[in-house]
Amino acid sequence: MSIEGRGDAVGGRLRLGMVGGGQGAFIGAVHRMAARLDDRWVLAAGALSSDPVRARASALELGIAEDRAYASYQDMLAAEAGRADRIDAVAIVTPNHMHYPVARAALEAGFDVICDKPLTATVAEAEALADLVATSGRLFAVTYNYTGYPLIRQARAMVAAGAIGDIRVVQVEYPQAWLTEPIEQGGQKQADWRTDPARSGAGGCVGDIGTHAYDLARFVSGLEAEAILAELTTFVPGRRLDDNVGVLIRYRGGARGMLWASQVAPGNENGLRLRVYGSRGGLEWSQEDPNYLWFTPLGEPKRRITRGGDGASPEAGRLTRVPFGHPEGYIEGFANIYREIADALAARKSGGAVDPAVVFPDVADGLAGVRFVAAAVKSASAGGTWVPLA
Amino acid sequence: MSIEGRGDAVGGRLRLGMVGGGQGAFIGAVHRMAARLDDRWVLAAGALSSDPVRARASALELGIAEDRAYASYQDMLAAEAGRADRIDAVAIVTPNHMHYPVARAALEAGFDVICDKPLTATVAEAEALADLVATSGRLFAVTYNYTGYPLIRQARAMVAAGAIGDIRVVQVEYPQAWLTEPIEQGGQKQADWRTDPARSGAGGCVGDIGTHAYDLARFVSGLEAEAILAELTTFVPGRRLDDNVGVLIRYRGGARGMLWASQVAPGNENGLRLRVYGSRGGLEWSQEDPNYLWFTPLGEPKRRITRGGDGASPEAGRLTRVPFGHPEGYIEGFANIYREIADALAARKSGGAVDPAVVFPDVADGLAGVRFVAAAVKSASAGGTWVPLA
Amino acid sequence: MSIEGRGDAVGGRLRLGMVGGGQGAFIGAVHRMAARLDDRWVLAAGALSSDPVRARASALELGIAEDRAYASYQDMLAAEAGRADRIDAVAIVTPNHMHYPVARAALEAGFDVICDKPLTATVAEAEALADLVATSGRLFAVTYNYTGYPLIRQARAMVAAGAIGDIRVVQVEYPQAWLTEPIEQGGQKQADWRTDPARSGAGGCVGDIGTHAYDLARFVSGLEAEAILAELTTFVPGRRLDDNVGVLIRYRGGARGMLWASQVAPGNENGLRLRVYGSRGGLEWSQEDPNYLWFTPLGEPKRRITRGGDGASPEAGRLTRVPFGHPEGYIEGFANIYREIADALAARKSGGAVDPAVVFPDVADGLAGVRFVAAAVKSASAGGTWVPLA
Amino acid sequence: MSIEGRGDAVGGRLRLGMVGGGQGAFIGAVHRMAARLDDRWVLAAGALSSDPVRARASALELGIAEDRAYASYQDMLAAEAGRADRIDAVAIVTPNHMHYPVARAALEAGFDVICDKPLTATVAEAEALADLVATSGRLFAVTYNYTGYPLIRQARAMVAAGAIGDIRVVQVEYPQAWLTEPIEQGGQKQADWRTDPARSGAGGCVGDIGTHAYDLARFVSGLEAEAILAELTTFVPGRRLDDNVGVLIRYRGGARGMLWASQVAPGNENGLRLRVYGSRGGLEWSQEDPNYLWFTPLGEPKRRITRGGDGASPEAGRLTRVPFGHPEGYIEGFANIYREIADALAARKSGGAVDPAVVFPDVADGLAGVRFVAAAVKSASAGGTWVPLA
Repeated sequence: MSIEGRGDAVGGRLRLGMVGGGQGAFIGAVHRMAARLDDRWVLAAGALSSDPVRARASALELGIAEDRAYASYQDMLAAEAGRADRIDAVAIVTPNHMHYPVARAALEAGFDVICDKPLTATVAEAEALADLVATSGRLFAVTYNYTGYPLIRQARAMVAAGAIGDIRVVQVEYPQAWLTEPIEQGGQKQADWRTDPARSGAGGCVGDIGTHAYDLARFVSGLEAEAILAELTTFVPGRRLDDNVGVLIRYRGGARGMLWASQVAPGNENGLRLRVYGSRGGLEWSQEDPNYLWFTPLGEPKRRITRGGDGASPEAGRLTRVPFGHPEGYIEGFANIYREIADALAARKSGGAVDPAVVFPDVADGLAGVRFVAAAVKSASAGGTWVPLA
Repeated sequence: MSIEGRGDAVGGRLRLGMVGGGQGAFIGAVHRMAARLDDRWVLAAGALSSDPVRARASALELGIAEDRAYASYQDMLAAEAGRADRIDAVAIVTPNHMHYPVARAALEAGFDVICDKPLTATVAEAEALADLVATSGRLFAVTYNYTGYPLIRQARAMVAAGAIGDIRVVQVEYPQAWLTEPIEQGGQKQADWRTDPARSGAGGCVGDIGTHAYDLARFVSGLEAEAILAELTTFVPGRRLDDNVGVLIRYRGGARGMLWASQVAPGNENGLRLRVYGSRGGLEWSQEDPNYLWFTPLGEPKRRITRGGDGASPEAGRLTRVPFGHPEGYIEGFANIYREIADALAARKSGGAVDPAVVFPDVADGLAGVRFVAAAVKSASAGGTWVPLA
Repeated sequence: MSIEGRGDAVGGRLRLGMVGGGQGAFIGAVHRMAARLDDRWVLAAGALSSDPVRARASALELGIAEDRAYASYQDMLAAEAGRADRIDAVAIVTPNHMHYPVARAALEAGFDVICDKPLTATVAEAEALADLVATSGRLFAVTYNYTGYPLIRQARAMVAAGAIGDIRVVQVEYPQAWLTEPIEQGGQKQADWRTDPARSGAGGCVGDIGTHAYDLARFVSGLEAEAILAELTTFVPGRRLDDNVGVLIRYRGGARGMLWASQVAPGNENGLRLRVYGSRGGLEWSQEDPNYLWFTPLGEPKRRITRGGDGASPEAGRLTRVPFGHPEGYIEGFANIYREIADALAARKSGGAVDPAVVFPDVADGLAGVRFVAAAVKSASAGGTWVPLA
Repeated sequence: MSIEGRGDAVGGRLRLGMVGGGQGAFIGAVHRMAARLDDRWVLAAGALSSDPVRARASALELGIAEDRAYASYQDMLAAEAGRADRIDAVAIVTPNHMHYPVARAALEAGFDVICDKPLTATVAEAEALADLVATSGRLFAVTYNYTGYPLIRQARAMVAAGAIGDIRVVQVEYPQAWLTEPIEQGGQKQADWRTDPARSGAGGCVGDIGTHAYDLARFVSGLEAEAILAELTTFVPGRRLDDNVGVLIRYRGGARGMLWASQVAPGNENGLRLRVYGSRGGLEWSQEDPNYLWFTPLGEPKRRITRGGDGASPEAGRLTRVPFGHPEGYIEGFANIYREIADALAARKSGGAVDPAVVFPDVADGLAGVRFVAAAVKSASAGGTWVPLA
């Protein structure tokens, strides 16, 4: 048993200010649970909706103090900047199109930022943010939350250590079913903005979940794409963005990959799955069964590595809260990102070095994801051609 | 998609006082995460160790206020009883032998109680607590946490609604591997007290995990045992309590069951698994894969019901935080118990009725578990004979 | 890849004479496919039904020569005994109650015998056959066909070699659903005789499939039961034999086991499953997924050994026809029994020694199975008491 | 339970003449087991090797009569054409490059043909064979054996009946590991010819297993590709043909597909897997677990349809030999092709119509596969461009 993780705060809590995530939202509540699980964060302030009335009501409902229940993110940034007990970070959980203006404003106001994915709606915006992060020196996390699963950390460490040799093939997929019918036309809130180019950006499925898949493959394999070729398809009549995407990937160094993401695949729920094959072995992992990592050393039987169990590595163990056989899930994986951000901020406060094991996705990862979406849209628009990635 | 659960507190937080669970403990940290996840509880006070120095240090480390970091549970009960902001409930997470005295004292001091399982070391103690609960009118929860899994709630509701007809066969098992070797002799803290009759009671494996299995079968099937016959075996040389148990169960009404629990089964981690078969269908569930419930209506293909997915019932939906395909796990299931206790306390405070869907295990369930352990020990001591259960 | 098995006859075919298995029968057709698969046997003669007309018609339909399409087993034994090209073995695939008279007659006529299970309806009959085999020197196989699966052979070899240390716990189960309703009352042929004590013997479910489970546990573990305690239950109204059985087993040497067999468990098809745990590891196998053997060395991750794949042993390889990933199934496992019988007969013909790897079940195994059924019935009749096994 | 299939010949056996498949070959032995399983075929003649000495020795070893153990396929065709008891069909199980000349000669000699896949090494050859079949009126089967699995038949029937609505997405994959290292350089016979363009054709992995995947997707979906785009990669140094292939497929009518085949993916054995998604549901099937078909009607829980079980269709039932829960596998699926060919030949002999359920792959399917390989090679050679398919 290799469990080093603790589910308890030791040494004080950080203050979080949230933008978006008010009544009826999905991902905001997830961020709050993730932040709360290890008791390292307190939700201190919020501008939880673009509607000022709903923003304040939502904040009060969540127990945020009256004077920190802001009507807008601008108000929040302005007021918090002047407080002695100012928030330690801004979490941005709005629809995609608002990521950029809020993140920019937060950075300019001197705040560290935690931003949901995809980073921005355009490459130019993402590059601007990356520049701003570099000049500001602020911490900037992008919640590609699937990188927070303990066994994903182990897979990444195993690849880096050569456990499967030189990587040849990377297969990643992310099928869902929930947009099989045009539910956005019935006003389903999650579907509504995700299928609206004005709020979601030029990518539909490719931006919403394709980026998760792309990022996870990068994160574990350590490889960067040289070029991609994408088929974006819209199967549901009337839908304005793609709902199915197939991508061929040429990685630098010669590895090859395929990426499939779909929101119209009945029988799938949240089927993010990664398989990486090298000259000496293979690794396989599925988000819906995240407590197991399947490792096949070439010429030996496949092995089931379990979170917290025999064979679990320190990289997995440090993000593990309960023993093997006691399943952890999506919230715990997400919480690991918040835990690591807290670790990084704590290290900075104390003047110490950040543990090198802390590897939550940052603005560079966010930029890579936006470039991927843009390249996929460009490839598809050109009829399916190879598009280089910077 | 059927998600009604919220991971956010709405309407204020309750104050928890904890006994046990200090540095190095396992289940105390789990209780804290469970209490924290939905933001319905604040850890306000603690007597976290039988060692006064460690008790206070542990409490301060967790951010408990100086004046509520108690040196003993007696101190805590006495001091809290006099506070205007007194704790709303006492959580007991000590080794088994301390459950009774602490629970008794807490009830007598007028506190509601959340007690880990097994309830007590003897039937007499458990009966005394049940009486005290009845006379005191206090709420008393026993954290048979596996009953908190959403799909276990659905299974229970389906059985009650007749979805599988008259129950005939109940198969429950709970294999683990972690005591395959005599690690208690090396001082492993969790193994140490669990294999010590003075702290664990007369049952080893049967008390530690056999009771979980027994309770889960009762909870889902709605059946009570009429008689059991048990084989308790100690395989590891030098061990003082059983580490493997096989039980035949005769349920009232004619159903038959088997229960297997083991702590010496290499390849198993926390393999609690329940299968219930009736005249019209079958239900199957595994704790290590808790987001799926397998339902076979007689004469039809097996169906995979997923937490939050198509086919999920209201009983599951109300305890669900994230959508289908985003796995929830052990902590979330445990948190559902804490959420329901909060619901019950909130209802009492407001003078309203408790939602009938709130069905966390109570002192009667705790008593049933202790009677099961006692009967199993009696049966095994007699060489394997049938022992009636009250 | 470790494949030594061949699906082709090399060196001539043996002649099989079959008793039972005519039109409408199930297991007779299975025996024929099993015999045919490796081209080691030719169906040369048959007395395929107790009805003389149907017997001959069935034989002709299968291509058996006119003069060897017998009206009764007595005719077949008499006529074949006098032929120069007489059959090499008699296969008995009748309902249970006919096993004994046919087997006895065949042995007395000097034939080698292949008999379906359970061997006989009573212990006395089984003992008489065992004696007759001993005195006659004839080969006598009992088709506990599940012992023919390649990975069951490997499991047996691994246990024998100490791969999992000293065996402590043996869990075997065999749930089915097909008798959940009283289909025998509607004349379903397979259900009809299996639920009729006159043709099936005193055991219903326990004799039909419980014996398979019991035999498989013996075969792999190498352990013999010292005593058993059984609950036999008849859940379906009007049924004359048990349809669910739970058994506790005390093995000689101290291991403990549980056996569950059921024919009233909706959601199960032919769920024979064996798990064996020792002081150094565990082995797990399921008949419905027979190409995988799960092996957990203590303190290491679980490994998936595949038939024909890396980790497959010679014991598995010699009974493997197609490579890893090309699933073999029930017929192939059954065919391995016929192949080994052919090997044994060929060795005897040539005066050579039988390969020690040839370990198909024999009359002793058949006798052990009948004793198990008798003891289970006795235990259950006495209200659930421990019954010693010779 | 829906089992109509019989494992016994009724009404006579057909005579098979085999070309290729002598000592040391793999697929020839598979064809023989497949032909033998249902007792519908007798191996009557053979030219089992291109080496005349080995050809005759192999034939005699298999029990072929002296005068039909031919030294060459030319000899076999010439001699058999003149016999009264001439063979009913020629089975071609040679390396790929010999398929064309042997098939041509067999057709020209008036024989029905059963040919392994891929049909030929070039499109021109395949077209020539298709023409010859048309003019000759001979039966011509191509052993895309995976179409013989009962539940693949059911999937095809369900798609055709609209059970999943309009097809949108087809995902097919076929990963293996066995060529991860350059075993052809060590003389492994199976690897040797498969990686040799002179014997295998222009496609390596894409021809050997990619065609199986492509054919299976066509067979089940009923869709034809309009254009494909392929990445063929050779990862193993020194290898002369591709060992990994990724393909994007545009189906006529608008569906989209992806195909991945690899022989360098450690942890995979023979991982052919098909997933088809439509506007009303999804179907999923894996060759390594072939007795289950997963069906998700939109908005309902996923269902596990089992071969022979509740939910199995007549299309599956007619090719089923043993009941649910008794796994059938690769050989049985292959045998279904031989059974259907026998059915078709028997119908022709008797002047009756062939059962419309008989849908074994024919020369058109073979041609489609060869066109796919050619288009994939062309696309890859051009750097990854879209190539139309006729």
